[in-house]
Amino acid sequence: MKKVLVIGCGLLGSSLVRKMSKKKIAKKIFVYEKSQSNISKIKKLRLPIKIVKTFKDGVVNSDLIIICTPLSEYKKLILKINNFISSRTLITDIGSSKVETSKIIKKFLRKDIQWIQSHPITGSEVSGPEYGKVNMFEDKWCILIKDKKTNLRCLKFISSFWKKVGSKIVIMDSKKHDKIFSITSHLPHLIAYNLVKSAQDFEKKQKYDLIKFSAGGLRDFSRIAASNEIMWRDIFFDNKINVSKAIDIFIKNLNSFKKDIKLKNNNSILKKLIQTKKVRSKIIKLKHDINKPDFGRS
Amino acid sequence: MKKVLVIGCGLLGSSLVRKMSKKKIAKKIFVYEKSQSNISKIKKLRLPIKIVKTFKDGVVNSDLIIICTPLSEYKKLILKINNFISSRTLITDIGSSKVETSKIIKKFLRKDIQWIQSHPITGSEVSGPEYGKVNMFEDKWCILIKDKKTNLRCLKFISSFWKKVGSKIVIMDSKKHDKIFSITSHLPHLIAYNLVKSAQDFEKKQKYDLIKFSAGGLRDFSRIAASNEIMWRDIFFDNKINVSKAIDIFIKNLNSFKKDIKLKNNNSILKKLIQTKKVRSKIIKLKHDINKPDFGRS
Repeated sequence: MKKVLVIGCGLLGSSLVRKMSKKKIAKKIFVYEKSQSNISKIKKLRLPIKIVKTFKDGVVNSDLIIICTPLSEYKKLILKINNFISSRTLITDIGSSKVETSKIIKKFLRKDIQWIQSHPITGSEVSGPEYGKVNMFEDKWCILIKDKKTNLRCLKFISSFWKKVGSKIVIMDSKKHDKIFSITSHLPHLIAYNLVKSAQDFEKKQKYDLIKFSAGGLRDFSRIAASNEIMWRDIFFDNKINVSKAIDIFIKNLNSFKKDIKLKNNNSILKKLIQTKKVRSKIIKLKHDINKPDFGRS
Repeated sequence: MKKVLVIGCGLLGSSLVRKMSKKKIAKKIFVYEKSQSNISKIKKLRLPIKIVKTFKDGVVNSDLIIICTPLSEYKKLILKINNFISSRTLITDIGSSKVETSKIIKKFLRKDIQWIQSHPITGSEVSGPEYGKVNMFEDKWCILIKDKKTNLRCLKFISSFWKKVGSKIVIMDSKKHDKIFSITSHLPHLIAYNLVKSAQDFEKKQKYDLIKFSAGGLRDFSRIAASNEIMWRDIFFDNKINVSKAIDIFIKNLNSFKKDIKLKNNNSILKKLIQTKKVRSKIIKLKHDINKPDFGRS
């Protein structure tokens, strides 16, 4: 490619930039970033990129535009992009929720423009360009969304792009995507935030210093609960129907567990604890996590 | 000390043995372990210990007995120990729930014997003597239980023992202990088990392969949900009143969060997400977790 534009250069945007420049995936990499503080950080990284000040400079003549902003920015971005984009430019994004954004795209994007939605399954609790890593996408799944009207040639192009940055590809429709990630990602984050909140509520009420004793489990949750708040607010809002269903399934399980404890229902509890343990072995076997106790931290 | 007996030589028991022999804390270390498979594993470790076959051999003439078994073993153990123990032998344990066990001790232990309850805040999702580590207790909190009738001389002795194996001491009563750990440890484990169960329920119902996409958050929970099932069943049963209250606080927060999402209550959600994020910085500052994104795993 001759020219790629990355819009939003935080953790994932900057990781993409690092990898693209290292692997020389594009002749020129342009970056549009609205936060002045992020721009200063990006400059310090001394990456071979051009930071554009106007939207037009970035969009015009791009082969590919990759949107790495929170979901709530999409509509505004589309309305601006529409003014400058050529019909030969392809758009993709890295958002974690797809059905709502596909509606926004359908409604607002110029009809001659192709946008293939992507979702690389990676990230971290830290935000900002300084935390980006060249191997952020290496051996990670990247979901590409294929709905009824998806242009297959464009899908192939985006697929080949993600393979070049190291990802493994899975294709599914946006509804299935949002259902799956409501359980594997959105619910865990929501739970982590609410567990930490419950600890804070308890601390305030009982006036105990709880955090001091977080090593028993709470500290793991606190990592996930430290994730970017704007990003996660947008995900929860966009995927609210699936997320609410996931909360309901989870609360049902919690109440049943509570009953088991109350009645000292030995068989039921043991069956549950043994059954859930198997998932860890499966995750380790699939190499989706590090095969060391305690994530290898010491 | 001349003679220490460790009853139950799994992850923590074997870690204690390693540390005690390395630091020469006792002249002789005896181990009583009922699992034949664990005994074989311990023998392979070639530690300078004596594995006793009868309870009597272990208990007689001990200065200190450290019980490292699941909580549900305590009553049986006490009834056996009563037959051989001398009143100069001190007992401690490493259990994670204290009020119920203190009742068992009070009811069944011979009246001339002193038992100081301990709870070192450490562990891992793996079980078994082969995973023990010499630095398991290094710089970790160890809670010592002091209730009305606690013998202060014995408390001092146990405190000095834990300091020798590397722990930092906090003293509190059993009720406060069980309240605090219902939130910082028991609730997180219960949630992890139930989140993984919810994913399994969903997988079965929708016939989607969820685990493949666990990197978005689920994999973190799966580590905690892989913890020893007997140990955790016992903790949930013993601390059921506090744990049930913790579940109720948590469900209340979940429902309020669900409502915020439904109504797109921006201010309330952002306030919560920003507030909970602060706990991570506090944990890192207190050096209770590794100060690297993603726990330093890569």
